[in-house]
Amino acid sequence: MISVSEAIQHIENYCIPSIIIEKPIEKTLNSVLAEDILSPINMPPFKQSSMDGYAFIHAENESYKIIGEIQAGNSEDILLKEGEAVRIFTGARVPNIADTVVMQEHTKTKDGFLFIDKLPNKFANVRPLGEQIKVGEIALEKGTKLNEAAIGFLVGLGILKVKVYKQPKVSILITGNELKQLGEELKEGEVYDSNSITLKLALQQIGIKKVRIVKIKDTFKATKKAVKKQIEKSDVVLISGGISVGDYDFVKKALEENEVKEVFYKVNQKPGKPLWFGHKDDTFVFALPGNPASSLSCFYMYVLPFIKAKLGHLKYHLPKLKAVVNEDVVNVHGKTLFLKAEVHNGIAKQLKGQASSMLKSFATSNSLLLLPEDKEIVKKGEEITYVKLN
Amino acid sequence: MISVSEAIQHIENYCIPSIIIEKPIEKTLNSVLAEDILSPINMPPFKQSSMDGYAFIHAENESYKIIGEIQAGNSEDILLKEGEAVRIFTGARVPNIADTVVMQEHTKTKDGFLFIDKLPNKFANVRPLGEQIKVGEIALEKGTKLNEAAIGFLVGLGILKVKVYKQPKVSILITGNELKQLGEELKEGEVYDSNSITLKLALQQIGIKKVRIVKIKDTFKATKKAVKKQIEKSDVVLISGGISVGDYDFVKKALEENEVKEVFYKVNQKPGKPLWFGHKDDTFVFALPGNPASSLSCFYMYVLPFIKAKLGHLKYHLPKLKAVVNEDVVNVHGKTLFLKAEVHNGIAKQLKGQASSMLKSFATSNSLLLLPEDKEIVKKGEEITYVKLN
Repeated sequence: MISVSEAIQHIENYCIPSIIIEKPIEKTLNSVLAEDILSPINMPPFKQSSMDGYAFIHAENESYKIIGEIQAGNSEDILLKEGEAVRIFTGARVPNIADTVVMQEHTKTKDGFLFIDKLPNKFANVRPLGEQIKVGEIALEKGTKLNEAAIGFLVGLGILKVKVYKQPKVSILITGNELKQLGEELKEGEVYDSNSITLKLALQQIGIKKVRIVKIKDTFKATKKAVKKQIEKSDVVLISGGISVGDYDFVKKALEENEVKEVFYKVNQKPGKPLWFGHKDDTFVFALPGNPASSLSCFYMYVLPFIKAKLGHLKYHLPKLKAVVNEDVVNVHGKTLFLKAEVHNGIAKQLKGQASSMLKSFATSNSLLLLPEDKEIVKKGEEITYVKLN
Repeated sequence: MISVSEAIQHIENYCIPSIIIEKPIEKTLNSVLAEDILSPINMPPFKQSSMDGYAFIHAENESYKIIGEIQAGNSEDILLKEGEAVRIFTGARVPNIADTVVMQEHTKTKDGFLFIDKLPNKFANVRPLGEQIKVGEIALEKGTKLNEAAIGFLVGLGILKVKVYKQPKVSILITGNELKQLGEELKEGEVYDSNSITLKLALQQIGIKKVRIVKIKDTFKATKKAVKKQIEKSDVVLISGGISVGDYDFVKKALEENEVKEVFYKVNQKPGKPLWFGHKDDTFVFALPGNPASSLSCFYMYVLPFIKAKLGHLKYHLPKLKAVVNEDVVNVHGKTLFLKAEVHNGIAKQLKGQASSMLKSFATSNSLLLLPEDKEIVKKGEEITYVKLN
C-alpha cells in the first residue's frame, strides 16, 4: 500500500495535456489555449475617439469652424485645417490630421462654430492605432484559460478559431447488483446508484460534457467485456465499485485480463483505500471504491487533477490552503484522512457524517481537510491543510 | 450621479428570487434549492454491512458454522443462531438477528467453519438502518446550492424532482453601427462586436444557458422597437452601448418611451459611468456602456449579483477580499475605480491597460481592485479591497 503523496506523484507522471485540436472561438469557454495567439490586426484598427465631442488640430483658438460629422463606423477621412473641428462620437475614426478630441461637456456651439470652455491636452481622448495591441504581437499566451473576457478580447481581434486541448472521452462503469437506477422501486437490500450522476456532474463542473455511463452486472464475464469495450472507446475509464476484496469484486481481475497495466492499487487513505490506477496504452483507468464518499474523495484528489491536466490546465490540483481547526481533529487510523469540512474566514469545522457511505456532509461542505497518516491529532487552534472544493 | 454603494443598494432592493419551478434532479447542477427536502426513506434503508466479511451474533466462540451467503442486493433475511455466521459483502443487508460483521482479513475458514483471529466490538461494521438520515428528516435545506455531491445525495434518497428558482430569460441588445460580427470583413472605422459574446459567456458561467442576442441599427425607431419587443419577451434585458451623451445614443429615450422606469442613471465610477438601471413591471433593464471593459465591469458589479439573486443564491455578490498592493495605486478621478489586477498570495498587482476599451487586462486578471471615490491613493504595502473574479 502506498501513501497519498506517492499516489499523487504517480498520477502526476501521467498529467500530460491531450492532443491539440482547433475549435470555433465561441465554443471554447474555460478551455486552455494550446498556442500563443498573435493579433492579426491593430487594436484599435484606426485612430479612435474615446469620447463624444469634437476632433481638431490642437491649438488655442477662440473658436473653431465645424466642418462635418463622423459617426462611429464611418470610414471617411475628413480633411480639416487648423481652426476647424468635426463633430465626433465615441468609437469613431479620428481624421488623420486631427490630434485631439474635446469632450462635448466642455464645449458650446453657435452658428456652426465650436467654443471650447476647457482646452484638453494635445492628444487627449484619442486612442492611437494599435494602442491596446499591434499586428503580430502576442494577444494571449499558450496556457491561458479562456474566460469570457479572453474570448471577448480574441473575438474583438477577429479571431475565429483557436487551438485548445481535446476533451478526453470519459466512460463511467457502475458495478453493484444492489444498485437501482433513479425512478425504479427499491426492494429490501437495494439502494439507489448515486455515483454515476455524482461523477458525471463532477466531470461536467470541470468542462467534460460527454460522459458515457454503463451499468455492469456483477459477473466476471460481464465486467471483463465491459472493461474491454470502454477501454477501446474512451480516453479515461472510471469504474465505480468492485475493486475491494469481496468475492464479487471482479474489477481487478477484469483489468488484468484486459492487459490494463497497474500503476498502483490501494492507498493508505480513508476514505478510498482500494483505489486502483493504471492504463492500457493511452487509455487511463481509475477504479474507484463504490462507497459514495470514497468515490468522490478519490475523484477530487486524483481524477480531477488528471483530467484538468489533460485539458491543459497548468494548475490542475484543487487549491490547497491552510486554516485553523475549531476543535481537535483526531486520526486513530494511521492513514491520511480526507475530512469533509466547512471553512469560513480561516476557521475549519469538521462536519458530522464522515463515513465512506455518507454523501450528506459532502453536499454541505466546501473543503476537505487533509490529516496526514503520521499525524495523530491537530489540536484546536492549530493549522491544518485543506483542499478547497468549490 | 450616484455613488457605487448607492447603485449597489438600488440593485439589492430588487434582488429577489425568481418564481419557483420543479425540475428533474439531474438538470439542477448549481441551482439553488427553493424548498427543504425531507428524506422519503431511511438511509441506509436496511441494516447494512460496511465490509466484506461475515455477519454473526456477537459472542466469543471458537468457531462459527457458515450457513449461507448474502450478496449486496439480496433481499432475503437469513435466520441464524448464535455460533453461526453468514458470508456477507459490503453494502449487503445484515440479517435482522445478527449484530456484528467481522472483516474477512481477520478471519480464516475451514470445512465450512469460520475462525475469527481478531474479534471486533459488538455492532462493528454494521450501518444501522437510517444511520445517515431517517424518513422525514431534512435532507437538504432551502437555499442549498446543488453541487454534484448534493445531487448525488438526493438521488441516493430516490428523489426525482426538486423545486428550484426559474432561470430568468435574458436578452442582449447590441447597438453601434461601427460593430461587425465575427467572420465579416472590417472596413476602415469599424471594429468587431465583442460584447455580445462576452456577456453571453459571462451569463453562461453563472448558469444562464438561454440568451437571445439582438443587433440593433442606431436609429431611434429601431432602438425603440427592439427595446419594446425584448421587454415583452424577457425577464432581464441587457443593452450594450448607446446610453452615453452622443447624438446617436438613443437608448435612454427609447427606454423612456417604452415606459421603463429609471431607477438610476450614471454612477460615479470608472469605467462604466453611464450605467442605466430600471424596470417595467417585472422586466429589468441594464443599459451598459458600450466599451468592452466598462460593460464587463458593470456586469460583474451589478448584473451578476442581480441575476444570482434571481437564481436564489444567498451570497449573490462576487466575493470581496483584502490584499496588499505591490505599488502605489492612485485615483486622480474622484470616482470609484475598478482596476483589473492579479492577486496571488495576498499581493495585488494592478495590470497594464485599464482603459475602458481594453479587454486584454480583463482576460488575464483574476480580480478587480476597488478604489473608493474618496481615496486618492493606496500606498505600496497598504491594504486594498478587491472582488475575486474567478
